[in-house]
Amino acid sequence: MAQPAAVSPLATPFPPLTPLGGVRLASGAAGIRYKGRTDLVLLEFAAGTTVAGVFTRNKCPGAPIDWCRAALAGGTARGLVVNAGNANVFTGRAGRETTEATAAAAAALLGCGPADIFLASTGVIGEVLPHQRITAALPALNASLTPDGWEAAARGIMTTDTFPKGARRLTSIAGVPVTIQGFAKGSGMIAPDMATMLCFVATDAALPAPVLQTLLAAAVDRSFNCTTVDSDTSTSDTVLLFATGAAGNTVPDTAGDPALAGFATALDELLLELALLVVRDGEGAGKLVQIDVSGATSDASARRVALAVANSPLVKTAIAGEDANWGRIVMAVGKSGEPADRDTLSVGVGGTWMARNGTVVPGYDEAPVVAHMRGRELQIDIDLGLGDGRGRAWTCDLTHGYIDINGSYRS
Amino acid sequence: MAQPAAVSPLATPFPPLTPLGGVRLASGAAGIRYKGRTDLVLLEFAAGTTVAGVFTRNKCPGAPIDWCRAALAGGTARGLVVNAGNANVFTGRAGRETTEATAAAAAALLGCGPADIFLASTGVIGEVLPHQRITAALPALNASLTPDGWEAAARGIMTTDTFPKGARRLTSIAGVPVTIQGFAKGSGMIAPDMATMLCFVATDAALPAPVLQTLLAAAVDRSFNCTTVDSDTSTSDTVLLFATGAAGNTVPDTAGDPALAGFATALDELLLELALLVVRDGEGAGKLVQIDVSGATSDASARRVALAVANSPLVKTAIAGEDANWGRIVMAVGKSGEPADRDTLSVGVGGTWMARNGTVVPGYDEAPVVAHMRGRELQIDIDLGLGDGRGRAWTCDLTHGYIDINGSYRS
Repeated sequence: MAQPAAVSPLATPFPPLTPLGGVRLASGAAGIRYKGRTDLVLLEFAAGTTVAGVFTRNKCPGAPIDWCRAALAGGTARGLVVNAGNANVFTGRAGRETTEATAAAAAALLGCGPADIFLASTGVIGEVLPHQRITAALPALNASLTPDGWEAAARGIMTTDTFPKGARRLTSIAGVPVTIQGFAKGSGMIAPDMATMLCFVATDAALPAPVLQTLLAAAVDRSFNCTTVDSDTSTSDTVLLFATGAAGNTVPDTAGDPALAGFATALDELLLELALLVVRDGEGAGKLVQIDVSGATSDASARRVALAVANSPLVKTAIAGEDANWGRIVMAVGKSGEPADRDTLSVGVGGTWMARNGTVVPGYDEAPVVAHMRGRELQIDIDLGLGDGRGRAWTCDLTHGYIDINGSYRS
Repeated sequence: MAQPAAVSPLATPFPPLTPLGGVRLASGAAGIRYKGRTDLVLLEFAAGTTVAGVFTRNKCPGAPIDWCRAALAGGTARGLVVNAGNANVFTGRAGRETTEATAAAAAALLGCGPADIFLASTGVIGEVLPHQRITAALPALNASLTPDGWEAAARGIMTTDTFPKGARRLTSIAGVPVTIQGFAKGSGMIAPDMATMLCFVATDAALPAPVLQTLLAAAVDRSFNCTTVDSDTSTSDTVLLFATGAAGNTVPDTAGDPALAGFATALDELLLELALLVVRDGEGAGKLVQIDVSGATSDASARRVALAVANSPLVKTAIAGEDANWGRIVMAVGKSGEPADRDTLSVGVGGTWMARNGTVVPGYDEAPVVAHMRGRELQIDIDLGLGDGRGRAWTCDLTHGYIDINGSYRS
């Protein structure tokens, strides 16, 4: 397995994730694919924990996705089992048997029904995942569950990731302090719907499952679904949000309850932070790029334009080369298929407008743009000049590192 | 300007293009961007030549595209001026002035109206193209027009191309021998609608412009629009087909005339040959990949699945790494958004089925697949198992060469 030589230059330190009421974690080495590292993670949730989930729209999802979609109907969760190294995708009946056996083993250990167990797998597609590797390792994990295992869990689910990814927010519901924290993994096969591989978040808030689902879907749409590394949508993308209720807040009935305003904002921020950590670890990434589109005919149109620019290999290679090649941005806007008029289009980089209303800005001085392009975090602004629609997307550059990693992933 | 170090390993020799009745060509060095090479091409067509064209669907097209779309209304052509090094895209009013001045100068030299002059430009976007460079060079080109200038013209329009691209077909209309031949350029910013940068084809057949347009549109849809290098749709894609009438055939009234069956087939073949030459020169390409999809719910759906696979960076990097990673093919099928059922899906490479009906083929022997992956021309077969729809796409692999070329194109 080719691993990148070093940690992404865009990496940030793992934040201090302290215990969260109602959650215990454990990690171990099940030898699924990797040697000498953890690759299996177990989370235990207190009785009464509610759950919400958002999954890949890929039409060929992995067996764990099927399992989670079915389990989500109950709205409650007691456990989560995640493995790295094998995605259990396109494995037919054997794949279903592995999910059933894994859930049954975890349920027996945690003293619940299998439908309260959630599953996720990441790694190679198309190879059978023998459930014995997992079920044999679970008892030891169960025996080592601890409230302190957050960073270890974030490390245990990594594949081509070069650093573990976590985030934490403190908020309140009707005056009762509440914490939200979680971790994510992913660095390739990252594109909207869902733009991550795996993300697990827990809160000690008490929230009904339908409320949790509404809040999660909105937050995912504003975070993970605005990011892309390589336009390839994984078969295994999963975001799960668990609410243990340990905080003891008054339980709101609807997602629109004003008491949830702070919680919703905190959840949005937390998911965006995790989504950008995934982009920061984009395979081979050297630069994080934010693309803001204004003047579109609608917000949805603006986002599609932003994502077309974010997905353009020519834009992404120009960024890797620190080349302020705004012509390629114009090309990508035009290929999006969204309403655009060449003669009202403006493009800026790093706060400098390079082109306005269809032509280069007279006397345009490239110097500040060149300086901005040399940085690690870049800003592209596009004004379509047509309406009030706004949208944003994030991506990374396309470098030799991406080719290195993906030209020999299995070998 | 970064130029690839060597000729594409997928290059084929330029075919012998002998004179075609009614066409003369000239090439010269106008110093538009390059030093020490030709960058300006002039074609002269006999009086009575009809013309058809297909252009980019990019919403931010170059000024020459606007010019050609307007000129095409007349249905006749006497001249074509093409330059390399500057695409005259996103150049506002200056861009329009350049097209007007260039057409006026060529029209004066060839003794026709400006609306009988067609224009194309390829190269950097967003820099003003001074028409004086072109208009000053045109008289010398006009003085050197020759029926033998085909390969020189194909070389004169190259940008990052590593070899000139030409093709020729002999056919007949109602017993009268007819020739079709042309040339193309393009190696990056290549994606469907239109999947090339520039392609110019001439025939000595006598054909009304509407007939020519119908035949051309159908042939482009079956060739260029089934190819992709990097999913980026150029602002300048142009295919023009000129019919001089020098062959003296009986003129058919409609594209459906049975006498045109052979001509239509020959035109299809010729455009496909030119389209595949462009893919063979895909920036950094080391392998040419044909993707056949069957069992789709419709032909259109099959083609979209084929193009989703052809555009997947993860599939293309796996091919570059000679890795028979069919899991990524499954992923790309699933992300296409087209009807697909994981449990009826089969994937084969080089004639070996690796996965059938949703799981790996029992006893699958990777050896013949590995051997096939080491070749220059690869075949991927996908059977969706849902219906009778079939489709095909072509692409190349994604290599370090693509990053090399595009990370420093302007520098």
